[in-house]
Amino acid sequence: MRQPASKLFLALFIIGLTTYCTPKEESQITETTPTEVATLQSWNDGATKDRITQFVEKTTNPSSSDFVPENKRIAVFDNDGTLWAESPLYFQLFYAVDFIKKNASSHPEWSNNPTIKAILNDDLHGALAGGEKALAEIIMVSHAGMTEEEFKTSVSTWLQNEKHPDTGKAFNKMIYQPMVELLEYLRSNGYKTFIVSGGGIDFIRVWAEEAYGIPPYQVVGSSLKAEYKEIDGKNQVVKLPELNFYDDKGGKPVGIHQHIGETPTMAFGNSDGDYEMLEYTTQSPGARLGVFIHHTDSVREYAYDRNTLVGKLVRGLDNAEANGWLLVDMANDWKTIYPN
Amino acid sequence: MRQPASKLFLALFIIGLTTYCTPKEESQITETTPTEVATLQSWNDGATKDRITQFVEKTTNPSSSDFVPENKRIAVFDNDGTLWAESPLYFQLFYAVDFIKKNASSHPEWSNNPTIKAILNDDLHGALAGGEKALAEIIMVSHAGMTEEEFKTSVSTWLQNEKHPDTGKAFNKMIYQPMVELLEYLRSNGYKTFIVSGGGIDFIRVWAEEAYGIPPYQVVGSSLKAEYKEIDGKNQVVKLPELNFYDDKGGKPVGIHQHIGETPTMAFGNSDGDYEMLEYTTQSPGARLGVFIHHTDSVREYAYDRNTLVGKLVRGLDNAEANGWLLVDMANDWKTIYPN
Repeated sequence: MRQPASKLFLALFIIGLTTYCTPKEESQITETTPTEVATLQSWNDGATKDRITQFVEKTTNPSSSDFVPENKRIAVFDNDGTLWAESPLYFQLFYAVDFIKKNASSHPEWSNNPTIKAILNDDLHGALAGGEKALAEIIMVSHAGMTEEEFKTSVSTWLQNEKHPDTGKAFNKMIYQPMVELLEYLRSNGYKTFIVSGGGIDFIRVWAEEAYGIPPYQVVGSSLKAEYKEIDGKNQVVKLPELNFYDDKGGKPVGIHQHIGETPTMAFGNSDGDYEMLEYTTQSPGARLGVFIHHTDSVREYAYDRNTLVGKLVRGLDNAEANGWLLVDMANDWKTIYPN
Repeated sequence: MRQPASKLFLALFIIGLTTYCTPKEESQITETTPTEVATLQSWNDGATKDRITQFVEKTTNPSSSDFVPENKRIAVFDNDGTLWAESPLYFQLFYAVDFIKKNASSHPEWSNNPTIKAILNDDLHGALAGGEKALAEIIMVSHAGMTEEEFKTSVSTWLQNEKHPDTGKAFNKMIYQPMVELLEYLRSNGYKTFIVSGGGIDFIRVWAEEAYGIPPYQVVGSSLKAEYKEIDGKNQVVKLPELNFYDDKGGKPVGIHQHIGETPTMAFGNSDGDYEMLEYTTQSPGARLGVFIHHTDSVREYAYDRNTLVGKLVRGLDNAEANGWLLVDMANDWKTIYPN
C-alpha cells in the first residue's frame, strides 16, 4: 500500500494542485477519559468555543426565545475533513485502490475502464479526470455483487491492516479529538448527531459507532442501489452496479430530507461540498448554526483551503462572514488533533 | 369525501375481492395514561403476550445466551394494518384521492393518465389495474413540485379536517393502542423502534412522532426523488415527478439496509408485503422474532387475510408456523383496538 500511495502523492505534487504540508508528530496530545469528554477540553478557550457553547446553551434553555425542543435538536456533520482527516486523499480512496488492485485479476472487464486503469497505474490525475462524482461512482460500482456482510468484513479487515502513509496511524485513529468531544457534548445536551457525507454510507457505518458514537442509522452518505436475493440458500441484500445516491453539494440537503426528515439545527463541514448543507440549515427559521472547520495547521495536521484537489473551501471562506457562519481555526482553536 | 369514498367501497364489494366487515363501536376501551403504557395493559394475558415479553426479557438479560447489546436492538414495524388500520383502503389513498380531486383543475395533463382518471371517477378497480406499485407511484408523483413544508402542511390540514368514513374518527386516532404500548415497552427495554412502510415516507413522518413516539429519522418508506433549488429566494427541497424508492416486499430489506444499516432483531407486519422483511430478519443469526398481526376482529375492527384488495396475508399465514413466526390474533389477544 505504501509504495503505490507514495506515487499517488507524487502525482499530487506534480500536477501542482495541492498546498499540502507534511504533518509532524503531535508533541502534546491531551489524554482523555470518557467522563471528561463532554467538557470540550481539547478546545482552547476563546471566541470559537464560546460561540458553540453559547448556541447550545440558548437552544437548550426553555426560557430562551431560541429554545429548540429536544426532538428537534439535530446536528449534522460532514465526515472527511470535518470528523477525520482527508489528506493527502480521502481515506476511502486508499481502501478503494487497495480493493481494486486486489480484485483486478478476477475482473478483466475493469481494464476497459479508463478510471480504473488510472487507479491501477497510480495516476490520480487521470482517475479524477471525470470529476469527483464520476470517481466515487466508479469506485463504488467496483463493490457491486458484494453482500452487506462481505462488504463489512472487507472494510474491517482493511482498517485493521493498513496504516496512513504519513502518520503510521490506523485510519480510524485519525479522527479529530475535539470533534469527538463536541459530538459527546451535543448528545449530552439532547442533540441527535448525524453524519452527512459524500463518502459511501456503508463504508462509514462499519467504524463510525466505535469512533464517534454514531450508530449506522444516523449515517447518511452516497450509496449504490441494492437488491434482496437468494445467495447460497440465504436471502441477502447485495450491492448492484448502479449509483443510488450521491450525497454531496446540493445532494446533502436532499440526503437530509430523505434520511432525517428534519431541517438540522446545526451543520458542520469543511469544504464547498458542504456549502448547500450549511445554507439549507441556516436559511431556515429559528436558531441555527453553520460551522466550517478551516484546515490551518500545517504542523499537527495539514493546511489547505483553496486550490486543493480534495477538501476545497472557496465559497465557504468567501461567504462565511456574510452568512453568519463560524470558522474554526484548527491551529488556534484545537489543543490537540487526534486521540492519543 | 364521504360520498366518493362510499362509491369506492361499493366498487370493492362489486368486484368481489374483499371480506371486509363493517366495524362497530368499541364497547370497552381501556383508558391509558403515559405511565401505564409500558405495561402492555391492552394485551390479554396468554401465549402471544408471553412469547413477546419472554423474547424481550431474554434479549435484554446480559446473562442469557440470547442477549443482544443495546446498540443492536432494532425493532421494525410495518405501518398500514400493523400500527394503524388500513381498511377499507390504505389511509394515504384517502389523502391522495382528496388531493388529486382538489388539484385536478390546475393539472389538465392528469386527464390523460388512466389511473388518475379512474381515481377521479371513484373507480378503484381501474385505479388498481396496474398493481399497487403503479398506483403508489402515480399518487406520489401527483405531489411533484411541492416543497417539504408545503407537503407537511397539506397532510396536516387533511388530517385535521377529514374523518374515517366508518368510524368517524380522525385517521391518526385509528392507531392500535396495543401496538403503541408495545412500542413504548420495547423502547423502555432499550430497543430502537422504526417504521418500515410501503407508504410514503413523508406522509407518515408528519404524524408518526405524535402518534407512536417515532421520530422522522426512524421512518423508512416509499419516496420520490427530490431536488435542492431556489424557490421564491429561498433554497428548498422540492419533490420531483419520479419514484425514488418503493419500500414494499423485497424493497423492505433494501430499505432497511439503506436507512438503518443493521439487521433488525424484531420485525412486525400484517401482509405479504412484509414477508421479505420478516424473512430477512429471522434468517439472520442470533435471537430474532418475526410477528404477523392477523386481522381477525370483525366486530371491533375488520376481519381479513386472503382474497383482499389490500393487506393480503397468504404466504405469511401458510408459512408462519414453519418459519417460527408469531401470529397475533387481534380478536383474542387485544383487549382494545384504538386509543380512547
